Amino acid sequence: MDPRVREHAQTLVEWSARIEPGDDVVVSVGEGAHALGVAVAEKLGDVGANYHAVYSSSEMNRAYLRAHDGEFDESPAFKHSLYKQADSVLSLRGTRNTSAAADVSEDTQQAYGKARGELREARMDTDWVSTVHPTRALAQQAGMSYETYCNFVYDAILRDWSTLADEMAKLKSILDDGREVTIRKESDGTELTMSIDNRTAVNSAASVAYNSHNLPSGEVFTAPCATEGEVTFDVPMTVRGTQLRDAWLAFEDGEVVDWKASQGTDVLSSIIETDDGASRLGELGIGMNHGIDRVTDQILFDEKMGGTVHLALGRAYDANLPDGESGNNSAVHVDLITDMREAGTELTVDGDLIQRNGFFRWEDKF
Amino acid sequence: MDPRVREHAQTLVEWSARIEPGDDVVVSVGEGAHALGVAVAEKLGDVGANYHAVYSSSEMNRAYLRAHDGEFDESPAFKHSLYKQADSVLSLRGTRNTSAAADVSEDTQQAYGKARGELREARMDTDWVSTVHPTRALAQQAGMSYETYCNFVYDAILRDWSTLADEMAKLKSILDDGREVTIRKESDGTELTMSIDNRTAVNSAASVAYNSHNLPSGEVFTAPCATEGEVTFDVPMTVRGTQLRDAWLAFEDGEVVDWKASQGTDVLSSIIETDDGASRLGELGIGMNHGIDRVTDQILFDEKMGGTVHLALGRAYDANLPDGESGNNSAVHVDLITDMREAGTELTVDGDLIQRNGFFRWEDKF
Repeated sequence: MDPRVREHAQTLVEWSARIEPGDDVVVSVGEGAHALGVAVAEKLGDVGANYHAVYSSSEMNRAYLRAHDGEFDESPAFKHSLYKQADSVLSLRGTRNTSAAADVSEDTQQAYGKARGELREARMDTDWVSTVHPTRALAQQAGMSYETYCNFVYDAILRDWSTLADEMAKLKSILDDGREVTIRKESDGTELTMSIDNRTAVNSAASVAYNSHNLPSGEVFTAPCATEGEVTFDVPMTVRGTQLRDAWLAFEDGEVVDWKASQGTDVLSSIIETDDGASRLGELGIGMNHGIDRVTDQILFDEKMGGTVHLALGRAYDANLPDGESGNNSAVHVDLITDMREAGTELTVDGDLIQRNGFFRWEDKF
Repeated sequence: MDPRVREHAQTLVEWSARIEPGDDVVVSVGEGAHALGVAVAEKLGDVGANYHAVYSSSEMNRAYLRAHDGEFDESPAFKHSLYKQADSVLSLRGTRNTSAAADVSEDTQQAYGKARGELREARMDTDWVSTVHPTRALAQQAGMSYETYCNFVYDAILRDWSTLADEMAKLKSILDDGREVTIRKESDGTELTMSIDNRTAVNSAASVAYNSHNLPSGEVFTAPCATEGEVTFDVPMTVRGTQLRDAWLAFEDGEVVDWKASQGTDVLSSIIETDDGASRLGELGIGMNHGIDRVTDQILFDEKMGGTVHLALGRAYDANLPDGESGNNSAVHVDLITDMREAGTELTVDGDLIQRNGFFRWEDKF
């Protein structure tokens, strides 16, 4: 076994999920995640937790959904009680074919998703963590050889999370105290100002102890409003199966008033026109994971990349909002990413320069 | 997909487990049983049942057990409630390595097994069915090529179960009405008489409707007592890792009084000397599955082989006993098999010839 698989399991069980002796842990194993499943089982045995392994098979799921008449029972009790009583749910993703469910109709997927609402909630009420085991299918999706993809994934996952969490705490503190964020990029004319007054930033340090449920993670995010100005997103991505490149948005009074893209303008339009909230920002995220050093068109990695900033059109997260405030609401939440690692970029909070050319002031001593 | 995988799934879901719309079904998928898992999921979708896939990984289990300190929690509630609420549990066995857990200590395995007693009971209270998907590891254990092993397994599983169940019902009726069974083999001097008075035979037709929980099955069995005479078991088998050949037992007053074997006498002795019940018979089984045409040293198949008879030293099954009677009790239940398909063999009930040279009277018209 690649020793990094064991390190991954240790990071997941100890840092991310904080599993303790006697904990009841559901381990959901993707079709291609067997090796990580074995390493996680070993670690859970070592800690003295109880485990129940779920087989998360996209091929079984596809076969079931295609054969079913589409009238699904609501969150069957036998499954619900499993998740309701679990302390933690560890999802070890790792598909053998990213298109495994490509021939299941959108209607069926939606109906099934809807019928599983209570199951999802029960799972979200546990100390859940999602992570990914590198597979050849995921390497292919990222356009990388398997060996290089493995290196990429482990560089992102096997961080010194405690040190990174401390660094991210600095930024969280600045954002929590701040009232206004501005980002500028000379190269493309980006100059965008957002209010973050009264919002609380989340230190997404890949641990339930930080209310952060993905491994890898490594970003600090908050919920902006009253956005003014314009911004270009130079990190290419696939949205709803369509290439989106150089998306450009212009904001007035917090709302998108004009937009274009060098490729994929139609999909950008369809996102923005989904509902009222889709033309407002739900998230400002600042990537701080320097283990992620390239774009792979997998949002879980791209948006955490050190030196990038992402903004999401649509729904805001409750964790960023004052109690009782609902924030921006929408059926969508689409992240768009801009790379700050070039000369002439700035990120300021209340006029103070926090990041320059992609480096924070505590990195670059300015 | 081999079309027989779908037929297997259909037999399992329809004939064996009798799954109905809305049933809550746990599907336990062995490491090598993915293809059958997909076919079963498809069938369950078609029927309109709910399913929860468990990953039954011997490698995860081994890693967990080896790392654990051995003080296991008793049947954790989150797992218990899953099985307690399930209508059916379908176990799709199919290992990738029959020695996957060879380096887990006997003590640990026993302690873990003991701690899972309530889980096992909850599972046994459902309409559970165990079956096996052919894997290369199982082919290797059987000493067969993969293709030949697949043919062997599907010949055993894809029977006309309804017709076989009717045939087995004839034998059950004879055994239920009968008081004494005798088996004779001229070739090796076997002449054994057992009382089956007041015992109820089980028609093991691979369906929960017949209180039969293995697919394949195909035997009729009862609980004999007051055994007299001697018997030789000419079907070779591996018991506790040791080759046992030509085991010979002599009975007086229901008890083994002398024994020997051409190979493996020590393991035979250790079985018989386990406890009081281990020197008495717990089961007389008559194999009626003619899809099984050769010995593979896998007891699930061997003991169902048409034309064979097996006797088990040790524990009797409750289903064979009158209400309130406990029958032979022992920590062991070891099946030993003799092949009746040769000239000069007889199986009689109360003196009536039921089977001759391995053929029943309704097969051979005598």
